[in-house]
Amino acid sequence: MNAEIISIGDELLIGQVINTNASWIAQQLNLTGVQVYQITAISDNNEHIRDALDAARAKSDIILITGGLGPTKDDITKQCLCDYFNTCLKFNQEAYDQIKELFHIRGLKLTDRNKKQAEIPEASIPIKNVNGTAPGMWFEDKGKVFISMPGVPFEMKSMMTDHILPKLRDRFSSEIIIHKTVLTQGVGESWLAEMISDWENDLPDNIKLAYLPQPGIVRLRLTTNGNDKKELKIILEKHISQLNEIISDLIFGYDDDTLEELVGKILRTKDKTLSTAESCTGGYISHLITSIPGSSDYYRGSVIAYSNEIKERELGVKKQSMIDHGVVSEEVVVQMAQGALGKFNTDYSIATSGIAGPGGGTDEKTVGTTWIAVAARDKIITKKYLFGENRERNIRKTAVTGLNMLRKLI
Amino acid sequence: MNAEIISIGDELLIGQVINTNASWIAQQLNLTGVQVYQITAISDNNEHIRDALDAARAKSDIILITGGLGPTKDDITKQCLCDYFNTCLKFNQEAYDQIKELFHIRGLKLTDRNKKQAEIPEASIPIKNVNGTAPGMWFEDKGKVFISMPGVPFEMKSMMTDHILPKLRDRFSSEIIIHKTVLTQGVGESWLAEMISDWENDLPDNIKLAYLPQPGIVRLRLTTNGNDKKELKIILEKHISQLNEIISDLIFGYDDDTLEELVGKILRTKDKTLSTAESCTGGYISHLITSIPGSSDYYRGSVIAYSNEIKERELGVKKQSMIDHGVVSEEVVVQMAQGALGKFNTDYSIATSGIAGPGGGTDEKTVGTTWIAVAARDKIITKKYLFGENRERNIRKTAVTGLNMLRKLI
Repeated sequence: MNAEIISIGDELLIGQVINTNASWIAQQLNLTGVQVYQITAISDNNEHIRDALDAARAKSDIILITGGLGPTKDDITKQCLCDYFNTCLKFNQEAYDQIKELFHIRGLKLTDRNKKQAEIPEASIPIKNVNGTAPGMWFEDKGKVFISMPGVPFEMKSMMTDHILPKLRDRFSSEIIIHKTVLTQGVGESWLAEMISDWENDLPDNIKLAYLPQPGIVRLRLTTNGNDKKELKIILEKHISQLNEIISDLIFGYDDDTLEELVGKILRTKDKTLSTAESCTGGYISHLITSIPGSSDYYRGSVIAYSNEIKERELGVKKQSMIDHGVVSEEVVVQMAQGALGKFNTDYSIATSGIAGPGGGTDEKTVGTTWIAVAARDKIITKKYLFGENRERNIRKTAVTGLNMLRKLI
Repeated sequence: MNAEIISIGDELLIGQVINTNASWIAQQLNLTGVQVYQITAISDNNEHIRDALDAARAKSDIILITGGLGPTKDDITKQCLCDYFNTCLKFNQEAYDQIKELFHIRGLKLTDRNKKQAEIPEASIPIKNVNGTAPGMWFEDKGKVFISMPGVPFEMKSMMTDHILPKLRDRFSSEIIIHKTVLTQGVGESWLAEMISDWENDLPDNIKLAYLPQPGIVRLRLTTNGNDKKELKIILEKHISQLNEIISDLIFGYDDDTLEELVGKILRTKDKTLSTAESCTGGYISHLITSIPGSSDYYRGSVIAYSNEIKERELGVKKQSMIDHGVVSEEVVVQMAQGALGKFNTDYSIATSGIAGPGGGTDEKTVGTTWIAVAARDKIITKKYLFGENRERNIRKTAVTGLNMLRKLI
């Protein structure tokens, strides 16, 4: 069973609005066992809408349409669907009662424009909209289902959740699709692909693998489909555990896990505390850590040392070390990490020093050169990285690498 | 002149990744005078890609394709384009040299897989990818242009900006579209709309206005089109200067300006220095400031004080003040700002203390309550804000508000 999502609206085609509706609908359909064949964004134009409907029905069983149902002149979807299905608009008492109720709750007066919204194509079944005045519409035509919804996200979402998804589930009790995403940190996409190529080649045909890279992280998404949910899960887990045998040191989590969340959980469980001393990351690690609610339970704070003087005075980095080895060096980053441990009286610390770029590189130390240290009371681990030339990416890569080094240490 | 954007990737169809690439490309094409007819997201599937290419060329002159150019097995776009245009892959020395250079800079070893990425369809012109190993490809076929780019946003964006958009501009000189965005900080969207409603109603028909809200910021985008660029600019400027008369205290910049950049420029020009003392923003202000290349010239550093003890010891906040007034109070945030000035020996400082949420609120001080102080040697300005319930948005709002308070002070 497959579907196409048609998003109608000029704002999508000038790039003013990002099509988050389509992603959300796709996610929900997937969870229901409906595969999305295509997502198409088109303009508020009669001919274009007809073309898109024709193209969609040729490939998909269910066509979900959003947008163009508002009360203003540029909203043409309803009339267009009327013409397409050769039907006419008819006043619908049920829809009208519901609009009246909504206006009553909000203490507003109905206009004629709103009354017109209760007119529904005769060939369709209205879908209740608890959050707005435009009802949804459900059409059936030559074995295909067409569903039209408003483009306002929270109106569309409640309509999907309360009415459309349950109805689709009943109607097309279909194939189950399962995803699991393995999160890795430490090597780039090509290297990772080399390392796991045997495992990848041995995957059965009904398991698909996708590489999804982000700065410092590569996500591996495995997808499988079939009829027996339990069995699918067992097969997926089997292959993931095989993968774990090959790259266990690279895997840090699954699905929506983040490093800042995982590190926080471990610190909380072990009742340990953390501080940071950031130079090149300039507060980004601290920002990630404190983006987690309740992080004040284990995170004490940071010194952002953006000058040598501050590194010396606030973190106790020896001036001579900076002169002898440079600010971007193992010696300095170790002293920064130790300085943070002492100053904040924490169990662990992370320290960074690097050339984020685009300026500041030398022949000896190019842009992207970065030292990271993670320290415990009795142990300190350091590592040098050569990241790229992009400042923003270097900052992100350093941050996730530092957090992962800490995760491994604790 | 119109275009279609084809985004290839299963991750789009299961809703795992939101198609921000397509919106960005649509925006850029619009600025270049190219209208986007349709945005289509499809799977990594040979037949589907061919169908989409056929459908796109029937309606559009330019077809921009993203995704599926990586070095791994699930990336099939290049081979598929080869078949579609009846050509074959050929090793391209220029592309190879560039991949080698990229690996050399990063200190990594080339794999055979990477070498294979230098193979380009013979019928295409390679497009340089300064940020990654997959070159872009430019095809011409029966009067239509097909452009294939990687799906990694920053690789695609630099390719578009440096090569593709200039080439499209040269090739299809069409109607001129001009945008100018006015950046405001201080009031929400609805309030702003009330304040400028007379001005908005007086805008001529060929100037379109869009409200683009972000946490703490509302962008007002004005768009106009025509044939005389000079004249369009004059009209736009006239209306913007009228707007300035109404809300000059809310406008902080234009187009791609950011507060962190503007603040940095002023500090650099005046040869002044800055430090921060962050509690609720947890390093986010510091991160914004240090995201600007060369910020080490004026930014000295920060104390992220995520515990009361650190506020006391590192910033000199009096324990009694915290007991008497609470940590989220004017007294505490003033002492934090003064502490940062002294510790880092800077001309200016920003300090924040608030309840970012979701926990930590009381009847007296609800989640979102935030105090911000900006200090100079001889002056200190404080303000209390009641932001919302969302942690991430509260952090962002506090950061941009603090930066804007500083901008006004200096």
